[in-house]
Amino acid sequence: MRIDPNKKHVEVCITPENYSLYEEYNEIVVVVDVLRATSAICTAFDYGVKSIIPVPTIEEAKTYKAKGYIVAAERNGEVVEGFDMGNSPFGFMQDDIRDKTVVLTTTNGTKCINLARNAGQVVIGSLMNIDALCVWLKKQNKDILVLCSGWKGKFNLEDSICAGAIVEQLLESKNYQAVEDSSIAAKFLYAHSKQKYLSFLKASSHRRRLKKLNLNADIKLCLIPNQSEAIPVLKGDELVNVNVKKPREFGVVF
Amino acid sequence: MRIDPNKKHVEVCITPENYSLYEEYNEIVVVVDVLRATSAICTAFDYGVKSIIPVPTIEEAKTYKAKGYIVAAERNGEVVEGFDMGNSPFGFMQDDIRDKTVVLTTTNGTKCINLARNAGQVVIGSLMNIDALCVWLKKQNKDILVLCSGWKGKFNLEDSICAGAIVEQLLESKNYQAVEDSSIAAKFLYAHSKQKYLSFLKASSHRRRLKKLNLNADIKLCLIPNQSEAIPVLKGDELVNVNVKKPREFGVVF
Repeated sequence: MRIDPNKKHVEVCITPENYSLYEEYNEIVVVVDVLRATSAICTAFDYGVKSIIPVPTIEEAKTYKAKGYIVAAERNGEVVEGFDMGNSPFGFMQDDIRDKTVVLTTTNGTKCINLARNAGQVVIGSLMNIDALCVWLKKQNKDILVLCSGWKGKFNLEDSICAGAIVEQLLESKNYQAVEDSSIAAKFLYAHSKQKYLSFLKASSHRRRLKKLNLNADIKLCLIPNQSEAIPVLKGDELVNVNVKKPREFGVVF
Repeated sequence: MRIDPNKKHVEVCITPENYSLYEEYNEIVVVVDVLRATSAICTAFDYGVKSIIPVPTIEEAKTYKAKGYIVAAERNGEVVEGFDMGNSPFGFMQDDIRDKTVVLTTTNGTKCINLARNAGQVVIGSLMNIDALCVWLKKQNKDILVLCSGWKGKFNLEDSICAGAIVEQLLESKNYQAVEDSSIAAKFLYAHSKQKYLSFLKASSHRRRLKKLNLNADIKLCLIPNQSEAIPVLKGDELVNVNVKKPREFGVVF
């Protein structure tokens, strides 16, 4: 497990509070917020949204709302009063968003997107788009940092497990190495839970929090891998899908 | 995995940068720095040291040195020039420290002890004293936060695995619960690596760093559980052993 100067890194930052310690790997930052921001973003692109403007604060979201944008705002797992939707992927399965720009603010995910703005490139990761994402990442041939959004700064299991799955896929390419202990731990958590990660995640504090809000359907949806081929990449202030295919017809899938 | 208001918590903070997020559990903070500060502290008490004054900076250590104290100072794995020793446990296996107060500053461990000063009680944990520590902890019947020192703010494997082992032992008592994702992950890492954690820790970045410095003997020593029954507790500015037994004779064990 020596550092190979000829290989690119795929490393994991398991909480956003540690981001500054891992910036050396941020040629590409993959922001992961499995429950639910980054899953919702992939879903929105699958349903034909043109672009998504992630904003860190409710105040900024309100400014966009006043300008007539469709705005999704979530805090503590719930839709913020006065906004069109929250961060449930189901909220984005609708025709109204097709070819529109949607503004999104969430408790954890959009804060992390903002935190990673200094990176060479920011891309959205989730279990929903994991295989398509990893194929795309391998083609970039750059250092990759997977940034787990966690829950209000704390470590969470679902983001770390998703990060571990990304590390595992990237390591299939001989061009990549993972040398940080956080990356090794994330990969280990994934490898030892992948046969049963839904049941393992029952232990997750965030899952427990969402369950209290009766969001079991959201959780189950967000944990199903490879529903989406979206690769949402930050260009300026907007996320756009660099892997555009024909958008889904509303109502076909669910 | 619901929170039980009648049970005490045993939770894990996996990097010192997250400490403020877990302060609600800090009736007792167990500071863990397996490689090597907290292992060295246990060893020092086994060899009869009277007390240890942990200081966060080299400057403070120099002030004590000028006053005539025995001072141990480590940065980046090496003894700092001009000091009596670093944080190798072997350095504390000597008669000179018997009944003396030793001052200690290290890259990670003593910073964490300082960070946790606001806790109800601060105690030193390592694999070396794990069983004795857990017996003592169970008797206190208070919320426990295991604070992993990590490496310069980053997560590391050996401290998280040791923390997971502490969680597992405390959960044997029906009075305890672990509900944070970080605690569940630490316990999982320990449970799935305990048969082979030495080989698992070969993957550890800090272990790799120490290996570069030819400290393999230190690493092997620090990973052997239950060599010590010391329970070093912070009283004012000093760590004292609240589980004093007859100190080891120099040279008997190694």
